[in-house]
Amino acid sequence: MTVWLVGAGPGDPDLLTVRAARLLGDADVVVHDALVGDGVLALANPAAELIDVGKRPGLPVPQETISALLVQLGRSGRRVVRLKGGDPFVFGRGGEELLALAAAGVECDVVPGVSSSFAAAALAGVPVTHRGLSASVTVVTGHRQPGGEEPAWAHLAKVGGTIVVMMGVARRGHIADRLMAGGLAPATPVLAVIRASTPTEERWVGRLDELATSPITNPATLVIGAVASLGRPLARSAPPSATLIQ
Amino acid sequence: MTVWLVGAGPGDPDLLTVRAARLLGDADVVVHDALVGDGVLALANPAAELIDVGKRPGLPVPQETISALLVQLGRSGRRVVRLKGGDPFVFGRGGEELLALAAAGVECDVVPGVSSSFAAAALAGVPVTHRGLSASVTVVTGHRQPGGEEPAWAHLAKVGGTIVVMMGVARRGHIADRLMAGGLAPATPVLAVIRASTPTEERWVGRLDELATSPITNPATLVIGAVASLGRPLARSAPPSATLIQ
Repeated sequence: MTVWLVGAGPGDPDLLTVRAARLLGDADVVVHDALVGDGVLALANPAAELIDVGKRPGLPVPQETISALLVQLGRSGRRVVRLKGGDPFVFGRGGEELLALAAAGVECDVVPGVSSSFAAAALAGVPVTHRGLSASVTVVTGHRQPGGEEPAWAHLAKVGGTIVVMMGVARRGHIADRLMAGGLAPATPVLAVIRASTPTEERWVGRLDELATSPITNPATLVIGAVASLGRPLARSAPPSATLIQ
Repeated sequence: MTVWLVGAGPGDPDLLTVRAARLLGDADVVVHDALVGDGVLALANPAAELIDVGKRPGLPVPQETISALLVQLGRSGRRVVRLKGGDPFVFGRGGEELLALAAAGVECDVVPGVSSSFAAAALAGVPVTHRGLSASVTVVTGHRQPGGEEPAWAHLAKVGGTIVVMMGVARRGHIADRLMAGGLAPATPVLAVIRASTPTEERWVGRLDELATSPITNPATLVIGAVASLGRPLARSAPPSATLIQ
């Protein structure tokens, strides 16, 4: 009676972990998010039942419903893989599912995945930390959670490291304003990566004060800080499919 | 003429990516760090040359020497895998190697890995972000780099999210002091994970004001923040091999 809480990585099936790929191939049921692509799902046991609980904007499946489903499936004795884009515990709400399963007495094993927060930058040749440029990296959600606090943008601006914003496209103007009010220079480099590691990946490079009017769409990862400018001369490391948008 | 800059993940060979495992199996040369364990290296092509450039305390191989070696190997036409523990770009100094290769005209492709910074916590059942507890996670080095700036600990303490300190064992007392001076409560939960995901993994759970005198040894990941306390009731998700030290 185990549910496997598994990270699917940023999108490219080759970026699943060896363990994740094996568990998918052996699964009876795969409960997945909208961000998990067809390439990854193609690795699942052909006999497995695939359940899409993707929380799309405007069509939210309540977290409680998903957790209850996992408990029910876990108790059924089937081999259950709960598959989340990126890493389950980096804005994946995996902690809530883990707690719900524990409370119900269903065992849960965690398989960490490659986090999109770091991989989106890496695949564009941008290191999130770099000697002399950035001694820390903060990953933060730009999405304002109901009842949730606003991140302390002014303090974040003064930490001095790289800032990676997930789910921040809709509020990117506000976020840029708060970071500049906190002391980040308007010319701070920004890299935006849309659909990282997929065949339709797009990238945008600009300045923090251009972010509000940038042509960025969901789902995107925003990388803010001096390291973002390192990507330009390294365009050769881009997958051939990536497009630079302006 | 390509050098593959590859993340090996936190230690467990099962946590390599599918692409990393394939590249290792096809490599002619593997240039690896001290933190990459035997289990991972066993996946390398048996005919491959293994070169250990591990930077151990007191026995540093200068970064320039490693970069020069990679350029030389890249030009040789052999299939070169540069293998780093965790993710190459999260305190792995991968950016410096990428820039050196680019400057020398040697192509370099990056394969992101599962970062130990997130995985160490996840495998202990601790989500680095969690609704209502942490809306951000900052990964920071505790190692003071020659000529490098001290992280802005006081601001970091006020951001309000989880703080993950890598390479911070030697200076853990200083770091705890700076964070408490910045406003973090002395009772802030701390999880330390030593040799995460390996058969000799150890964990320690305590308070920030106990960190200085904690029996933690290298290499360890320190997870500081309210989420660290979530691990206790979730001990069932621990690998059987993990030991709780006191």
